[in-house]
Amino acid sequence: MEHLILHEYAASGNCYKVRLTAALLGLPIERREYDIMKSETRTPEFLSNVNANGRIPVLQAGERFIPESNAACFYLADGSHLIPSDRFDRADMLRWMFWEQYNHEPNVATLRFWYGWLGETNWTDLQRAQLPAKRAAGEAALALMDEHLGRYDWFVGSSATLADIALYAYTHVCEGGGFRLADYPNVVKWLERVPTLPTFIPMSA
Amino acid sequence: MEHLILHEYAASGNCYKVRLTAALLGLPIERREYDIMKSETRTPEFLSNVNANGRIPVLQAGERFIPESNAACFYLADGSHLIPSDRFDRADMLRWMFWEQYNHEPNVATLRFWYGWLGETNWTDLQRAQLPAKRAAGEAALALMDEHLGRYDWFVGSSATLADIALYAYTHVCEGGGFRLADYPNVVKWLERVPTLPTFIPMSA
Repeated sequence: MEHLILHEYAASGNCYKVRLTAALLGLPIERREYDIMKSETRTPEFLSNVNANGRIPVLQAGERFIPESNAACFYLADGSHLIPSDRFDRADMLRWMFWEQYNHEPNVATLRFWYGWLGETNWTDLQRAQLPAKRAAGEAALALMDEHLGRYDWFVGSSATLADIALYAYTHVCEGGGFRLADYPNVVKWLERVPTLPTFIPMSA
Repeated sequence: MEHLILHEYAASGNCYKVRLTAALLGLPIERREYDIMKSETRTPEFLSNVNANGRIPVLQAGERFIPESNAACFYLADGSHLIPSDRFDRADMLRWMFWEQYNHEPNVATLRFWYGWLGETNWTDLQRAQLPAKRAAGEAALALMDEHLGRYDWFVGSSATLADIALYAYTHVCEGGGFRLADYPNVVKWLERVPTLPTFIPMSA
């Protein structure tokens, strides 16, 4: 594979997804850090050279760039054991990954950011008004995962796929956003299962 | 392929994506309608038999179910010309599809729903408070598309892929949400290009 560079903010779960995928596949990846709290991904240089959408992570493969964490993971894992070879299972894996970006990340990850980075005293009135809906939607997402994981060890098929990686990233730190993992016992067991994967790395690595 | 059933609400752009993909591939698909305004996707039967997440579309392939519109499109198109065979292009297609669900749909599609289905006089205070941010984010999404389409005819590579289908669905009806297509001339040209694809079907079909 080409030389890989991850344009990232290390504490972002979306960036961790890409690092974890690379680690599980044994792919070396160079890391380049941007401070999102200083708007370093909104500079003219970043917007014209890395991602016009002004966000991290962006995976650079050679001279080309792949924004969107789950797409970057797919690029790294294409053809590997982390993507099912069965057609239905492959689509089912993508189902969980699209669901993660639509139903999980905007609630579970956003509240972690609001509490842990912005700080409650700095919230805008709009953020305060959105809190109950985001709390309820985040809890519904965790409950849906818990129901599924009460019947299966992994999200798709009989081993870990990108769906598990995508959902692990923000779920394992959801208490930073005020969610209570103890309410989701099957999620807790799965959170203990993921780190047993060979060559797993924690978010802080 | 197995017998295909689309559990849908026909006016939903997310459901249209799946029908359009099937049409472009010449796949027959049975349609089953649910009235989301009467919460027909939140009944105990729907939640336990079709989708625990209570949303449409859901693609049924034989006895199995695939929620999430973009995952359903991927299932239908897997191995076809609508998904690039090149590894980078395949990931780049998914990049646009994840971006659509995160940056485009929650703004462009949501405002269409608020204006066209809920009606402005029925909005909650929270919806009113969210409007400016959703307007700005929707405009930013359309501007990003316009910039890209000023340089390329299609989102990925030199022909239509699922990225075009996913983005066409809500973009071509964005004026229902108060967006002005005239502000995005390259998007307008692309919106005229998509319906020239062989076996294309309109949303109303």
